[in-house]
Amino acid sequence: MTNAALIEELKTLVEPGKVLTDAPSLEAYGKDWTKHFAPAPSAIVFPKSIEQVQAIVRWANQHKVALVPSGGRTGLSAAAVAANGEVVVAFDYMNQILEFNEFDRTVVCQPGVITEQLQNFAEEKGLYYPVDFASAGSSQIGGNIGTNAGGIKVIRYGMTRNWVAGMKVVTGAGDLLELNRDLIKNATGYDMRQLFIGAEGTLGFVVEATMRLDRAPKNLTAMVLGSPDLDSIMPVLHAFQSKLDLTAFEFFSDKAMAKVLARGDVPAPFETDCPFYALLEFEAASEEIANDALATFEHCVEQGWVLDGVMSQSEQQLQNLWKLREYISETISHWTPYKNDISVTVSKVPAFLHDIDAIVESNYPDFEVVWFGHIGDGNLHLNILKPDNLSKDEFFAKCATVNKWVFETVQKYNGSISAEHGVGMTKRDYLGYSRSEPEIAVMRAIKAVFDPNGIMNPGKIFN
Amino acid sequence: MTNAALIEELKTLVEPGKVLTDAPSLEAYGKDWTKHFAPAPSAIVFPKSIEQVQAIVRWANQHKVALVPSGGRTGLSAAAVAANGEVVVAFDYMNQILEFNEFDRTVVCQPGVITEQLQNFAEEKGLYYPVDFASAGSSQIGGNIGTNAGGIKVIRYGMTRNWVAGMKVVTGAGDLLELNRDLIKNATGYDMRQLFIGAEGTLGFVVEATMRLDRAPKNLTAMVLGSPDLDSIMPVLHAFQSKLDLTAFEFFSDKAMAKVLARGDVPAPFETDCPFYALLEFEAASEEIANDALATFEHCVEQGWVLDGVMSQSEQQLQNLWKLREYISETISHWTPYKNDISVTVSKVPAFLHDIDAIVESNYPDFEVVWFGHIGDGNLHLNILKPDNLSKDEFFAKCATVNKWVFETVQKYNGSISAEHGVGMTKRDYLGYSRSEPEIAVMRAIKAVFDPNGIMNPGKIFN
Repeated sequence: MTNAALIEELKTLVEPGKVLTDAPSLEAYGKDWTKHFAPAPSAIVFPKSIEQVQAIVRWANQHKVALVPSGGRTGLSAAAVAANGEVVVAFDYMNQILEFNEFDRTVVCQPGVITEQLQNFAEEKGLYYPVDFASAGSSQIGGNIGTNAGGIKVIRYGMTRNWVAGMKVVTGAGDLLELNRDLIKNATGYDMRQLFIGAEGTLGFVVEATMRLDRAPKNLTAMVLGSPDLDSIMPVLHAFQSKLDLTAFEFFSDKAMAKVLARGDVPAPFETDCPFYALLEFEAASEEIANDALATFEHCVEQGWVLDGVMSQSEQQLQNLWKLREYISETISHWTPYKNDISVTVSKVPAFLHDIDAIVESNYPDFEVVWFGHIGDGNLHLNILKPDNLSKDEFFAKCATVNKWVFETVQKYNGSISAEHGVGMTKRDYLGYSRSEPEIAVMRAIKAVFDPNGIMNPGKIFN
Repeated sequence: MTNAALIEELKTLVEPGKVLTDAPSLEAYGKDWTKHFAPAPSAIVFPKSIEQVQAIVRWANQHKVALVPSGGRTGLSAAAVAANGEVVVAFDYMNQILEFNEFDRTVVCQPGVITEQLQNFAEEKGLYYPVDFASAGSSQIGGNIGTNAGGIKVIRYGMTRNWVAGMKVVTGAGDLLELNRDLIKNATGYDMRQLFIGAEGTLGFVVEATMRLDRAPKNLTAMVLGSPDLDSIMPVLHAFQSKLDLTAFEFFSDKAMAKVLARGDVPAPFETDCPFYALLEFEAASEEIANDALATFEHCVEQGWVLDGVMSQSEQQLQNLWKLREYISETISHWTPYKNDISVTVSKVPAFLHDIDAIVESNYPDFEVVWFGHIGDGNLHLNILKPDNLSKDEFFAKCATVNKWVFETVQKYNGSISAEHGVGMTKRDYLGYSRSEPEIAVMRAIKAVFDPNGIMNPGKIFN
């Protein structure tokens, strides 16, 4: 069958107008937020039901057509990029919240429900969907599950994994599986729901997900603390974690702070200049908790771990303190930074970070390194800014060398080359730094179980 | 090779004296807490290191010898029973806590570490291992992981799954895999750690596990509430869950309460007789929280959902209230009960329980049904007491019919035939009530990936 005939057949499987092949659509739906791979899909198909998804997968198996899932297209690892003539399956028209149960605190979502849509729905019900990150306004639940999205509240609430009560998936073989049936306790064999979470669409498509909600947080309160060195951040985390249930523990360097303050639209938290800052958040549900927080702060100052600090006294102050952290990424994008999202266990963060700093410093003394991240989860965002006197090409050529050093150091510390952004195509060739050969071999074999013809997002995670 | 020659070869793989073939050992190590299958292993082997485990698995592959893992042997599904000449691999000599990290709050455990040993270790460090259940004094961490053990604190802390930061496993193929490297965030492909949790030893052996700890709970406080009917328990749960972070929400019927009070060693919580009771627990970390709890209690009384109640004012009272729930299982064992451990989503509990009651009542009006369980998780323990005028054989013959009705009702409510005890051999033939044919086919294929020769605990979960 010719390519054109295939697309005509595909059109019969969905509603009229729900297969697009025009150039702007192919360009828009063929990529995510990464820029390394040129989008080149052969068509975009928009199913409106589980049955249509199954029909598409059966069709793809019959004709050995590769499929790429597409959600909010905010991914950062090129897992949702179609660069090789694949058919993109976009879930934009499966975007409804189907059901809410107040006793189970669950919401049945179609995969195209936007993260923010679920967050707002929860809020209307007096509840809370706690997975939150910069792209929550565009990212979709199906994509969140595919990448096991994390973000800024993981220290308290965990990743997306923790909030998936159950899901329906269409496997690469076209089977519809109802995984876990939304139960809290279910000891009936392998929990395959867990395999699909973080599988980046390589095993099948998530076609429905039941998400759990939590009670709404009470009186969220933030502190920004300045520390004399990175090593001090660890005992600070430890001291606060022993006393409070932290909802966030972020960190950023003086360089990150300086860039954000230079914007002129965010007030400085305090006067003292410090090389490192921590932003922590907790529910000040009672006066005792607020007092515990202040006492812990004073203890940290006495120990010399903290030089200065501030605690939010209002919703407005809370927002302003968060801006110090949340504006970093956007602010430094001006310097076209080399970015890497990596993790180690929390206790190894200082040594790991010193190692990377020393490597970059000794090899590229002109490079400005900006660190920030979810240090309470061991998740660091490494950013190296392009010096003005280097062209983009020269800069990125040098960064390719940096990549190798970073991953070697990750391996030395037994860490992860991708903390929360996934592997996709951008880190595929580096997977061996974090997963052993037998592990990768097993992953390939598991893929073959669910996707015998290799049609589901091929070339992502591994080749 | 003869069986005797095989055992001689096995002896060369471990330390002297660490292979047992005497009848009492075969009897003791060949079974768990279930009584349905007669133990008949051919030998018991006690490895002391990961290398020895790998050597045993390679030997088993070479000679196609089936292996059965053995931990604390407290399982309730015959998952650790060796009834067919298998070699039992017992982890009693791999029982050390190897490492503690205060910043990561993690403990590296050998698989034979007893649950209580980990709980006590955590307490010594001012921390808390929150997975707790009746057999914590004997069960081992490796077995807890194999069955994804739950228990009485799941509503707040989740199952064992939530506390496994990483683990080392020896697969059925003999490969040593280091899964997840103890990271909080790790988006590098399929999370195979999750597959081994709850796999009942059918994919490989857990040979080391890094367990997370939590901060110690503050001022745990319990309430026992009496309700006029089961339907009232749901809004009570909902009301409390909206206000408090519950650490437990258990329920039991008047019949369960009556049996425990008849022992004479536990005080009645209050005078009012009620058909159903709830025991809930929370951290009364501040006066505000205790006041919230009392206000919610009053609200529930006003609504008619609660007839009477009591709140613990001391550690002693807390323990006494818990005895009302914890003594049930032991107390009713006198009536050699038919037992079943099942779950549905929380909101379906009342309708489900009414259905089962009606079926048993209409078919066997002489049977006394005792309900209790973790209702906050949708996990019900159904117990039917043997009428005095029936022989054991007659009673269990009738219960075989009950089994079918129970599982059909579970299926009708899309629930689980095994909430937390696992499938093992006891529920193997009923798996189809909770998992579809394509799901079971995929499980078999996944097993074949990790265990190509089918030597790892064969005949458990599925045949």
